[in-house]
Amino acid sequence: MKYIESKKNEEIKQFNKLNKTKEIKKTGTYLIEGFHLVREADQNDQKIVTILATENHQDDQLIKKYYDQAIIISDDIAEQLSETKTPQGIFAVIEVPERTEVTQLTGQWVFLANVQDPGNVGTIIRTADAAGYDGVITSLDTADIYQPKVQRSMQGSQFHLPIYRMDLTKALELAKKSQLTVYGSEVNAEAVPYNTLEKVENFALIMGNEAHGLNQATLSATDKNIYIPIKGKAESLNVAVAAGVLMYGLQSF
Amino acid sequence: MKYIESKKNEEIKQFNKLNKTKEIKKTGTYLIEGFHLVREADQNDQKIVTILATENHQDDQLIKKYYDQAIIISDDIAEQLSETKTPQGIFAVIEVPERTEVTQLTGQWVFLANVQDPGNVGTIIRTADAAGYDGVITSLDTADIYQPKVQRSMQGSQFHLPIYRMDLTKALELAKKSQLTVYGSEVNAEAVPYNTLEKVENFALIMGNEAHGLNQATLSATDKNIYIPIKGKAESLNVAVAAGVLMYGLQSF
Repeated sequence: MKYIESKKNEEIKQFNKLNKTKEIKKTGTYLIEGFHLVREADQNDQKIVTILATENHQDDQLIKKYYDQAIIISDDIAEQLSETKTPQGIFAVIEVPERTEVTQLTGQWVFLANVQDPGNVGTIIRTADAAGYDGVITSLDTADIYQPKVQRSMQGSQFHLPIYRMDLTKALELAKKSQLTVYGSEVNAEAVPYNTLEKVENFALIMGNEAHGLNQATLSATDKNIYIPIKGKAESLNVAVAAGVLMYGLQSF
Repeated sequence: MKYIESKKNEEIKQFNKLNKTKEIKKTGTYLIEGFHLVREADQNDQKIVTILATENHQDDQLIKKYYDQAIIISDDIAEQLSETKTPQGIFAVIEVPERTEVTQLTGQWVFLANVQDPGNVGTIIRTADAAGYDGVITSLDTADIYQPKVQRSMQGSQFHLPIYRMDLTKALELAKKSQLTVYGSEVNAEAVPYNTLEKVENFALIMGNEAHGLNQATLSATDKNIYIPIKGKAESLNVAVAAGVLMYGLQSF
Protein backbone atom coordinates (compact mmCIF):
# COMPACT_ATOMS: atom_id res chain seq x y z
CA MET A 1 0.00 0.00 0.00
CA LYS A 2 1.23 3.48 -0.74
CA TYR A 3 0.00 7.03 -0.27
CA ILE A 4 -0.32 9.78 -2.86
CA GLU A 5 -1.55 13.23 -1.95
CA SER A 6 -0.66 15.39 -4.91
CA LYS A 7 -2.79 15.69 -8.04
CA LYS A 8 0.44 16.37 -9.90
CA ASN A 9 1.89 12.95 -9.12
CA GLU A 10 2.88 11.23 -12.36
CA GLU A 11 0.99 8.01 -11.59
CA ILE A 12 -2.19 9.98 -10.85
CA LYS A 13 -1.80 11.93 -14.08
CA GLN A 14 -1.60 8.59 -15.87
CA PHE A 15 -4.81 7.29 -14.24
CA ASN A 16 -6.56 10.52 -15.20
CA LYS A 17 -5.76 9.82 -18.84
CA LEU A 18 -7.77 6.59 -18.70
CA ASN A 19 -10.90 8.56 -19.55
CA LYS A 20 -9.59 8.57 -23.13
CA THR A 21 -10.08 5.65 -25.51
CA LYS A 22 -6.60 6.15 -26.96
CA GLU A 23 -4.98 5.70 -23.56
CA ILE A 24 -7.18 2.70 -22.73
CA LYS A 25 -6.03 1.03 -25.94
CA LYS A 26 -2.39 1.93 -25.36
CA THR A 27 -2.25 0.62 -21.80
CA GLY A 28 -4.77 -2.22 -22.12
CA THR A 29 -6.33 -1.04 -18.85
CA TYR A 30 -9.37 1.00 -17.86
CA LEU A 31 -10.71 2.74 -14.79
CA ILE A 32 -13.82 1.79 -12.85
CA GLU A 33 -15.39 3.74 -10.01
CA GLY A 34 -17.51 3.04 -6.94
CA PHE A 35 -17.95 0.13 -4.54
CA HIS A 36 -20.49 -1.70 -6.67
CA LEU A 37 -18.25 -1.92 -9.73
CA VAL A 38 -15.01 -2.62 -7.87
CA ARG A 39 -16.71 -5.43 -5.94
CA GLU A 40 -18.20 -6.84 -9.13
CA ALA A 41 -14.77 -6.76 -10.81
CA ASP A 42 -13.33 -8.66 -7.87
CA GLN A 43 -16.14 -11.21 -7.78
CA ASN A 44 -16.01 -11.74 -11.54
CA ASP A 45 -12.28 -12.55 -11.61
CA GLN A 46 -11.18 -9.41 -13.39
CA LYS A 47 -7.49 -8.59 -13.24
CA ILE A 48 -7.23 -5.64 -10.83
CA VAL A 49 -3.94 -3.82 -11.49
CA THR A 50 -4.37 -0.98 -8.99
CA ILE A 51 -6.98 -0.08 -6.42
CA LEU A 52 -7.32 3.56 -5.37
CA ALA A 53 -9.17 4.61 -2.25
CA THR A 54 -9.46 7.61 0.01
CA GLU A 55 -8.12 7.34 3.56
CA ASN A 56 -11.49 6.58 5.16
CA HIS A 57 -11.63 3.32 3.19
CA GLN A 58 -8.14 2.08 4.00
CA ASP A 59 -9.33 -0.59 6.41
CA ASP A 60 -12.02 -1.96 4.07
CA GLN A 61 -11.78 -5.64 3.28
CA LEU A 62 -11.39 -5.00 -0.42
CA ILE A 63 -8.39 -2.72 0.15
CA LYS A 64 -6.82 -5.28 2.47
CA LYS A 65 -7.32 -8.02 -0.10
CA TYR A 66 -5.48 -5.97 -2.71
CA TYR A 67 -2.96 -4.52 -0.25
CA ASP A 68 0.01 -4.68 -2.63
CA GLN A 69 -1.93 -2.96 -5.41
CA ALA A 70 -3.54 -0.32 -3.19
CA ILE A 71 -2.91 3.42 -3.29
CA ILE A 72 -4.47 5.68 -0.69
CA ILE A 73 -5.36 8.98 -2.33
CA SER A 74 -6.46 12.42 -1.12
CA ASP A 75 -10.05 13.60 -1.51
CA ASP A 76 -8.79 16.07 -4.10
CA ILE A 77 -7.46 13.29 -6.28
CA ALA A 78 -10.69 11.31 -5.86
CA GLU A 79 -12.69 14.31 -7.03
CA GLN A 80 -10.45 14.73 -10.03
CA LEU A 81 -10.67 11.06 -11.04
CA SER A 82 -14.40 10.85 -10.51
CA GLU A 83 -17.17 11.07 -13.09
CA THR A 84 -19.72 11.91 -10.40
CA LYS A 85 -20.40 14.94 -8.24
CA THR A 86 -20.16 13.01 -4.98
CA PRO A 87 -17.42 10.39 -5.45
CA GLN A 88 -17.47 7.32 -3.19
CA GLY A 89 -13.69 7.51 -3.03
CA ILE A 90 -12.89 4.12 -4.51
CA PHE A 91 -11.56 3.26 -7.96
CA ALA A 92 -9.77 0.40 -9.65
CA VAL A 93 -7.61 0.12 -12.72
CA ILE A 94 -8.37 -3.18 -14.38
CA GLU A 95 -7.14 -5.00 -17.44
CA VAL A 96 -9.26 -4.93 -20.57
CA PRO A 97 -10.07 -8.64 -20.94
CA GLU A 98 -8.67 -10.45 -23.93
CA ARG A 99 -11.44 -11.77 -26.11
CA THR A 100 -10.79 -14.96 -27.98
CA GLU A 101 -12.14 -14.84 -31.50
CA VAL A 102 -15.78 -15.83 -31.70
CA THR A 103 -16.69 -18.37 -34.37
CA GLN A 104 -20.29 -19.22 -33.55
CA LEU A 105 -23.27 -17.36 -32.06
CA THR A 106 -26.33 -18.89 -30.43
CA GLY A 107 -29.34 -17.44 -28.69
CA GLN A 108 -30.22 -13.75 -28.57
CA TRP A 109 -27.71 -11.10 -29.59
CA VAL A 110 -27.68 -7.34 -29.94
CA PHE A 111 -25.42 -5.70 -32.52
CA LEU A 112 -24.60 -2.01 -32.09
CA ALA A 113 -23.87 -0.33 -35.44
CA ASN A 114 -22.28 3.09 -35.02
CA VAL A 115 -24.05 3.95 -31.76
CA GLN A 116 -22.24 7.12 -30.68
CA ASP A 117 -23.54 8.28 -27.32
CA PRO A 118 -21.68 6.58 -24.46
CA GLY A 119 -24.79 6.66 -22.25
CA ASN A 120 -26.83 4.89 -24.93
CA VAL A 121 -24.18 2.20 -25.46
CA GLY A 122 -23.93 1.50 -21.73
CA THR A 123 -27.69 1.50 -21.22
CA ILE A 124 -28.30 -0.89 -24.14
CA ILE A 125 -25.70 -3.35 -22.81
CA ARG A 126 -27.22 -3.12 -19.31
CA THR A 127 -30.66 -3.85 -20.81
CA ALA A 128 -29.28 -6.78 -22.83
CA ASP A 129 -27.90 -8.15 -19.57
CA ALA A 130 -31.22 -7.64 -17.74
CA ALA A 131 -33.22 -9.24 -20.54
CA GLY A 132 -30.95 -12.28 -20.46
CA TYR A 133 -29.44 -11.84 -23.92
CA ASP A 134 -26.47 -14.04 -24.80
CA GLY A 135 -24.13 -11.25 -25.84
CA VAL A 136 -23.48 -7.98 -27.61
CA ILE A 137 -21.35 -7.14 -30.63
CA THR A 138 -20.27 -3.52 -31.08
CA SER A 139 -19.11 -2.28 -34.48
CA LEU A 140 -15.69 -0.64 -34.79
CA ASP A 141 -17.35 2.81 -35.06
CA THR A 142 -19.51 2.39 -31.92
CA ALA A 143 -18.39 4.22 -28.76
CA ASP A 144 -15.72 2.23 -26.90
CA ILE A 145 -17.25 0.41 -23.92
CA TYR A 146 -14.29 1.04 -21.61
CA GLN A 147 -14.86 4.81 -21.49
CA PRO A 148 -15.98 6.10 -18.07
CA LYS A 149 -19.30 7.38 -19.43
CA VAL A 150 -20.18 3.97 -20.85
CA GLN A 151 -19.05 2.32 -17.60
CA ARG A 152 -21.37 4.53 -15.65
CA SER A 153 -24.51 3.56 -17.53
CA MET A 154 -23.43 -0.06 -18.12
CA GLN A 155 -23.23 -0.64 -14.33
CA GLY A 156 -20.99 -3.70 -14.50
CA SER A 157 -22.81 -5.61 -17.22
CA GLN A 158 -19.47 -6.10 -19.01
CA PHE A 159 -18.77 -8.68 -16.30
CA HIS A 160 -22.01 -10.58 -17.01
CA LEU A 161 -22.20 -11.18 -20.73
CA PRO A 162 -19.70 -11.39 -23.60
CA ILE A 163 -19.18 -8.17 -25.55
CA TYR A 164 -17.22 -8.39 -28.79
CA ARG A 165 -15.94 -5.52 -30.92
CA MET A 166 -15.62 -6.27 -34.62
CA ASP A 167 -16.28 -5.07 -38.12
CA LEU A 168 -20.07 -5.06 -38.64
CA THR A 169 -19.83 -6.87 -41.97
CA LYS A 170 -17.96 -9.70 -40.27
CA ALA A 171 -20.53 -9.77 -37.47
CA LEU A 172 -23.33 -10.10 -40.03
CA GLU A 173 -21.50 -12.93 -41.81
CA LEU A 174 -21.03 -14.65 -38.47
CA ALA A 175 -24.75 -14.28 -37.69
CA LYS A 176 -25.69 -15.82 -41.06
CA LYS A 177 -23.21 -18.65 -40.64
CA SER A 178 -24.66 -19.26 -37.16
CA GLN A 179 -28.20 -19.30 -38.61
CA LEU A 180 -29.43 -16.42 -36.48
CA THR A 181 -32.40 -14.47 -37.85
CA VAL A 182 -31.07 -10.94 -38.36
CA TYR A 183 -33.41 -8.03 -37.56
CA GLY A 184 -32.59 -4.49 -38.65
CA SER A 185 -34.43 -1.62 -37.00
CA GLU A 186 -35.83 0.93 -39.41
CA VAL A 187 -39.01 2.69 -40.42
CA ASN A 188 -39.84 2.10 -44.09
CA ALA A 189 -42.51 0.56 -46.28
CA GLU A 190 -41.03 -2.93 -46.17
CA ALA A 191 -40.35 -2.95 -42.44
CA VAL A 192 -42.88 -4.63 -40.15
CA PRO A 193 -44.07 -3.68 -36.65
CA TYR A 194 -41.98 -5.65 -34.14
CA ASN A 195 -45.07 -6.89 -32.34
CA THR A 196 -46.46 -8.71 -35.39
CA LEU A 197 -43.43 -10.99 -35.78
CA GLU A 198 -43.50 -14.69 -35.16
CA LYS A 199 -41.02 -15.18 -32.34
CA VAL A 200 -37.81 -17.11 -32.99
CA GLU A 201 -35.24 -18.43 -30.53
CA ASN A 202 -32.00 -17.44 -32.18
CA PHE A 203 -31.63 -13.95 -33.52
CA ALA A 204 -29.52 -10.82 -33.76
CA LEU A 205 -31.11 -7.39 -33.36
CA ILE A 206 -29.14 -4.53 -34.92
CA MET A 207 -29.51 -1.04 -33.43
CA GLY A 208 -28.14 1.88 -35.46
CA ASN A 209 -26.81 5.41 -35.11
CA GLU A 210 -28.81 7.95 -33.06
CA ALA A 211 -29.27 10.38 -35.95
CA HIS A 212 -28.95 8.24 -39.07
CA GLY A 213 -30.15 4.78 -38.08
CA LEU A 214 -28.76 1.89 -40.11
CA ASN A 215 -27.10 2.36 -43.48
CA GLN A 216 -28.43 0.78 -46.67
CA ALA A 217 -25.75 -1.91 -46.86
CA THR A 218 -26.63 -3.13 -43.36
CA LEU A 219 -30.39 -2.98 -43.95
CA SER A 220 -30.10 -5.07 -47.09
CA ALA A 221 -28.04 -7.71 -45.26
CA THR A 222 -30.83 -8.37 -42.73
CA ASP A 223 -33.52 -11.04 -42.83
CA LYS A 224 -36.24 -8.62 -41.77
CA ASN A 225 -36.43 -4.95 -40.90
CA ILE A 226 -38.67 -4.06 -38.00
CA TYR A 227 -39.97 -0.90 -36.33
CA ILE A 228 -41.78 0.32 -33.26
CA PRO A 229 -45.09 1.99 -34.13
CA ILE A 230 -45.05 5.75 -33.44
CA LYS A 231 -48.61 6.64 -32.52
CA GLY A 232 -48.13 10.18 -31.24
CA LYS A 233 -46.33 13.19 -32.67
CA ALA A 234 -42.78 12.42 -31.54
CA GLU A 235 -40.50 11.90 -34.52
CA SER A 236 -38.60 9.01 -33.02
CA LEU A 237 -37.62 7.19 -29.86
CA ASN A 238 -34.34 7.45 -28.01
CA VAL A 239 -32.20 4.54 -29.28
CA ALA A 240 -31.69 3.01 -25.82
CA VAL A 241 -35.45 3.05 -25.18
CA ALA A 242 -36.13 1.58 -28.65
CA ALA A 243 -33.55 -1.15 -27.96
CA GLY A 244 -35.30 -1.95 -24.66
CA VAL A 245 -38.76 -2.16 -26.22
CA LEU A 246 -37.43 -4.40 -29.02
CA MET A 247 -35.23 -6.60 -26.80
CA TYR A 248 -38.14 -7.47 -24.52
CA GLY A 249 -40.66 -7.41 -27.36
CA LEU A 250 -38.80 -10.02 -29.42
CA GLN A 251 -38.65 -12.56 -26.62
CA SER A 252 -41.18 -15.26 -26.00
CA PHE A 253 -42.10 -15.51 -22.37
CA MET B 1 -34.68 43.49 -34.08
CA LYS B 2 -31.67 44.41 -32.02
CA TYR B 3 -28.04 43.35 -31.74
CA ILE B 4 -26.12 42.24 -28.66
CA GLU B 5 -22.46 41.31 -28.83
CA SER B 6 -21.33 41.26 -25.22
CA LYS B 7 -21.73 38.28 -22.92
CA LYS B 8 -21.89 40.77 -20.09
CA ASN B 9 -25.05 42.42 -21.38
CA GLU B 10 -27.73 42.40 -18.65
CA GLU B 11 -30.41 40.85 -20.87
CA ILE B 12 -28.06 38.03 -21.88
CA LYS B 13 -27.13 37.43 -18.25
CA GLN B 14 -30.82 37.09 -17.56
CA PHE B 15 -31.34 34.53 -20.36
CA ASN B 16 -28.39 32.55 -19.04
CA LYS B 17 -30.15 32.21 -15.71
CA LEU B 18 -33.02 30.37 -17.37
CA ASN B 19 -31.12 27.10 -16.92
CA LYS B 20 -32.24 27.28 -13.28
CA THR B 21 -35.66 26.11 -12.13
CA LYS B 22 -35.89 28.97 -9.67
CA GLU B 23 -35.50 31.56 -12.41
CA ILE B 24 -37.93 29.72 -14.70
CA LYS B 25 -40.54 29.86 -11.95
CA LYS B 26 -39.83 33.49 -11.15
CA THR B 27 -40.08 34.70 -14.74
CA GLY B 28 -42.67 32.24 -16.03
CA THR B 29 -40.47 31.72 -19.10
CA TYR B 30 -37.99 29.11 -20.29
CA LEU B 31 -35.32 28.76 -22.94
CA ILE B 32 -35.42 26.38 -25.90
CA GLU B 33 -32.63 25.74 -28.36
CA GLY B 34 -32.24 24.70 -31.99
CA PHE B 35 -34.31 25.00 -35.16
CA HIS B 36 -36.41 21.95 -34.50
CA LEU B 37 -37.71 23.15 -31.13
CA VAL B 38 -38.12 26.80 -32.08
CA ARG B 39 -40.12 25.79 -35.17
CA GLU B 40 -42.23 23.42 -33.11
CA ALA B 41 -42.93 26.15 -30.57
CA ASP B 42 -44.03 28.45 -33.39
CA GLN B 43 -46.21 25.80 -35.03
CA ASN B 44 -47.78 24.79 -31.74
CA ASP B 45 -48.89 28.32 -30.83
CA GLN B 46 -46.51 28.81 -27.95
CA LYS B 47 -46.01 32.37 -26.78
CA ILE B 48 -42.51 33.33 -28.02
CA VAL B 49 -41.24 36.23 -25.92
CA THR B 50 -37.79 36.59 -27.47
CA ILE B 51 -35.98 34.87 -30.29
CA LEU B 52 -32.17 34.84 -30.26
CA ALA B 53 -30.12 34.02 -33.34
CA THR B 54 -26.58 34.42 -34.59
CA GLU B 55 -25.94 36.78 -37.51
CA ASN B 56 -25.93 34.05 -40.17
CA HIS B 57 -29.60 33.34 -39.37
CA GLN B 58 -30.84 36.92 -39.45
CA ASP B 59 -32.60 36.53 -42.80
CA ASP B 60 -34.34 33.26 -41.86
CA GLN B 61 -38.11 33.28 -42.17
CA LEU B 62 -38.59 32.53 -38.51
CA ILE B 63 -36.50 35.54 -37.47
CA LYS B 64 -38.43 37.76 -39.87
CA LYS B 65 -41.73 36.51 -38.50
CA TYR B 66 -40.66 37.47 -34.96
CA TYR B 67 -38.80 40.62 -36.04
CA ASP B 68 -39.88 42.70 -33.06
CA GLN B 69 -38.88 40.00 -30.59
CA ALA B 70 -35.57 39.13 -32.31
CA ILE B 71 -32.09 39.68 -30.91
CA ILE B 72 -29.05 38.97 -33.07
CA ILE B 73 -26.30 37.61 -30.84
CA SER B 74 -22.59 36.90 -31.26
CA ASP B 75 -21.24 33.36 -31.60
CA ASP B 76 -19.72 33.77 -28.14
CA ILE B 77 -23.12 34.39 -26.59
CA ALA B 78 -24.62 31.45 -28.51
CA GLU B 79 -21.91 29.18 -27.14
CA GLN B 80 -22.55 30.41 -23.64
CA LEU B 81 -26.33 29.90 -23.86
CA SER B 82 -26.05 26.50 -25.51
CA GLU B 83 -26.35 23.07 -23.89
CA THR B 84 -24.55 21.46 -26.85
CA LYS B 85 -20.99 21.45 -28.10
CA THR B 86 -21.92 22.69 -31.57
CA PRO B 87 -24.79 25.16 -31.13
CA GLN B 88 -27.08 25.82 -34.10
CA GLY B 89 -27.18 29.48 -33.08
CA ILE B 90 -30.91 29.80 -32.52
CA PHE B 91 -32.83 30.03 -29.24
CA ALA B 92 -36.19 31.23 -28.04
CA VAL B 93 -37.51 32.37 -24.69
CA ILE B 94 -41.08 31.15 -24.39
CA GLU B 95 -43.79 31.40 -21.80
CA VAL B 96 -44.43 28.44 -19.54
CA PRO B 97 -48.01 27.56 -20.55
CA GLU B 98 -50.72 28.01 -17.98
CA ARG B 99 -52.37 24.71 -17.22
CA THR B 100 -55.99 24.77 -16.31
CA GLU B 101 -56.76 22.44 -13.48
CA VAL B 102 -57.45 18.91 -14.62
CA THR B 103 -60.56 17.24 -13.22
CA GLN B 104 -60.83 14.06 -15.28
CA LEU B 105 -58.36 11.67 -16.93
CA THR B 106 -59.10 9.25 -19.75
CA GLY B 107 -56.94 6.88 -21.76
CA GLN B 108 -53.30 6.06 -21.02
CA TRP B 109 -51.30 8.14 -18.56
CA VAL B 110 -47.79 8.06 -17.11
CA PHE B 111 -47.18 9.43 -13.62
CA LEU B 112 -43.60 10.31 -12.65
CA ALA B 113 -43.04 10.00 -8.91
CA ASN B 114 -39.79 11.62 -7.80
CA VAL B 115 -37.87 10.92 -11.02
CA GLN B 116 -34.70 12.95 -10.55
CA ASP B 117 -32.51 12.73 -13.61
CA PRO B 118 -33.48 15.38 -16.18
CA GLY B 119 -32.50 13.08 -19.07
CA ASN B 120 -34.78 10.34 -17.74
CA VAL B 121 -37.73 12.71 -17.31
CA GLY B 122 -37.34 14.07 -20.84
CA THR B 123 -36.87 10.64 -22.39
CA ILE B 124 -39.93 9.19 -20.63
CA ILE B 125 -42.12 12.07 -21.82
CA ARG B 126 -40.76 11.68 -25.37
CA THR B 127 -41.58 7.95 -25.22
CA ALA B 128 -45.09 8.66 -23.87
CA ASP B 129 -45.58 10.98 -26.85
CA ALA B 130 -44.27 8.35 -29.32
CA ALA B 131 -46.43 5.61 -27.83
CA GLY B 132 -49.50 7.82 -28.17
CA TYR B 133 -50.22 8.21 -24.45
CA ASP B 134 -52.81 10.79 -23.46
CA GLY B 135 -50.67 12.69 -20.99
CA VAL B 136 -48.11 12.77 -18.21
CA ILE B 137 -48.36 13.89 -14.59
CA THR B 138 -45.14 14.77 -12.78
CA SER B 139 -45.03 14.84 -8.99
CA LEU B 140 -43.84 17.98 -7.24
CA ASP B 141 -40.51 16.31 -6.43
CA THR B 142 -39.81 15.21 -10.02
CA ALA B 143 -37.25 17.23 -12.04
CA ASP B 144 -38.85 20.34 -13.55
CA ILE B 145 -39.58 19.78 -17.25
CA TYR B 146 -38.58 23.31 -18.31
CA GLN B 147 -34.92 22.78 -17.44
CA PRO B 148 -32.61 22.75 -20.48
CA LYS B 149 -31.48 19.16 -19.84
CA VAL B 150 -35.06 17.91 -19.81
CA GLN B 151 -35.81 19.96 -22.95
CA ARG B 152 -32.93 18.34 -24.73
CA SER B 153 -34.11 14.78 -24.21
CA MET B 154 -37.84 15.65 -24.45
CA GLN B 155 -37.33 16.98 -28.02
CA GLY B 156 -40.49 19.08 -28.12
CA SER B 157 -42.93 16.52 -26.74
CA GLN B 158 -44.21 19.17 -24.29
CA PHE B 159 -45.97 20.66 -27.33
CA HIS B 160 -47.69 17.36 -28.19
CA LEU B 161 -49.30 16.07 -25.04
CA PRO B 162 -50.54 17.58 -21.78
CA ILE B 163 -48.08 17.48 -18.90
CA TYR B 164 -49.38 18.38 -15.45
CA ARG B 165 -47.39 18.94 -12.29
CA MET B 166 -49.18 18.14 -9.06
CA ASP B 167 -48.99 16.43 -5.72
CA LEU B 168 -48.79 12.68 -6.33
CA THR B 169 -51.49 11.91 -3.77
CA LYS B 170 -53.87 14.21 -5.63
CA ALA B 171 -52.92 12.61 -8.94
CA LEU B 172 -53.72 9.17 -7.51
CA GLU B 173 -57.10 10.39 -6.23
CA LEU B 174 -57.81 11.85 -9.64
CA ALA B 175 -56.91 8.55 -11.31
CA LYS B 176 -59.28 6.63 -8.97
CA LYS B 177 -62.06 9.14 -9.52
CA SER B 178 -61.51 8.81 -13.28
CA GLN B 179 -61.66 5.00 -12.99
CA LEU B 180 -58.20 4.44 -14.39
CA THR B 181 -56.47 1.20 -13.43
CA VAL B 182 -53.36 2.29 -11.51
CA TYR B 183 -50.15 0.31 -12.06
CA GLY B 184 -47.17 0.75 -9.77
CA SER B 185 -43.81 -0.53 -10.94
CA GLU B 186 -41.95 -2.60 -8.40
CA VAL B 187 -40.28 -5.94 -7.86
CA ASN B 188 -41.81 -7.82 -4.95
CA ALA B 189 -43.68 -11.00 -4.18
CA GLU B 190 -47.11 -9.54 -4.88
CA ALA B 191 -46.12 -7.78 -8.10
CA VAL B 192 -46.85 -9.52 -11.41
CA PRO B 193 -44.82 -9.61 -14.65
CA TYR B 194 -46.16 -6.85 -16.93
CA ASN B 195 -46.55 -9.24 -19.82
CA THR B 196 -49.03 -11.47 -18.02
CA LEU B 197 -51.61 -8.69 -17.46
CA GLU B 198 -54.94 -8.56 -19.16
CA LYS B 199 -54.81 -5.34 -21.16
CA VAL B 200 -57.11 -2.48 -20.22
CA GLU B 201 -57.88 0.72 -22.10
CA ASN B 202 -57.71 3.30 -19.35
CA PHE B 203 -54.79 3.23 -16.97
CA ALA B 204 -52.05 5.16 -15.22
CA LEU B 205 -48.54 3.75 -15.01
CA ILE B 206 -46.41 5.15 -12.17
CA MET B 207 -42.63 5.24 -12.58
CA GLY B 208 -40.55 5.92 -9.47
CA ASN B 209 -37.22 7.28 -8.34
CA GLU B 210 -34.03 5.98 -10.01
CA ALA B 211 -32.49 4.67 -6.79
CA HIS B 212 -35.45 4.04 -4.50
CA GLY B 213 -38.38 3.21 -6.80
CA LEU B 214 -41.84 3.92 -5.40
CA ASN B 215 -42.48 4.48 -1.73
CA GLN B 216 -44.78 2.27 0.32
CA ALA B 217 -47.64 4.78 0.45
CA THR B 218 -47.74 4.99 -3.33
CA LEU B 219 -47.43 1.23 -3.84
CA SER B 220 -50.36 0.57 -1.53
CA ALA B 221 -52.51 3.09 -3.41
CA THR B 222 -52.18 1.20 -6.71
CA ASP B 223 -54.53 -1.40 -8.19
CA LYS B 224 -51.69 -3.67 -9.21
CA ASN B 225 -47.92 -3.60 -8.96
CA ILE B 226 -46.04 -4.86 -11.98
CA TYR B 227 -42.45 -5.60 -12.93
CA ILE B 228 -40.24 -6.40 -15.87
CA PRO B 229 -38.61 -9.84 -15.52
CA ILE B 230 -34.84 -9.60 -15.02
CA LYS B 231 -33.40 -12.73 -16.60
CA GLY B 232 -29.71 -11.90 -16.56
CA LYS B 233 -27.40 -10.63 -13.83
CA ALA B 234 -28.11 -6.89 -14.06
CA GLU B 235 -29.66 -5.61 -10.86
CA SER B 236 -32.17 -3.34 -12.54
CA LEU B 237 -33.07 -1.46 -15.69
CA ASN B 238 -32.57 2.24 -16.36
CA VAL B 239 -35.91 3.90 -15.45
CA ALA B 240 -36.41 5.43 -18.92
CA VAL B 241 -35.85 2.04 -20.56
CA ALA B 242 -38.19 0.35 -18.06
CA ALA B 243 -40.83 3.02 -18.76
CA GLY B 244 -40.49 2.36 -22.50
CA VAL B 245 -40.83 -1.40 -22.13
CA LEU B 246 -43.90 -0.97 -19.88
CA MET B 247 -45.56 1.80 -21.92
CA TYR B 248 -45.45 -0.27 -25.11
CA GLY B 249 -46.00 -3.53 -23.24
CA LEU B 250 -49.25 -2.38 -21.60
CA GLN B 251 -50.88 -1.37 -24.87
CA SER B 252 -53.04 -3.58 -27.00
CA PHE B 253 -52.12 -3.31 -30.64
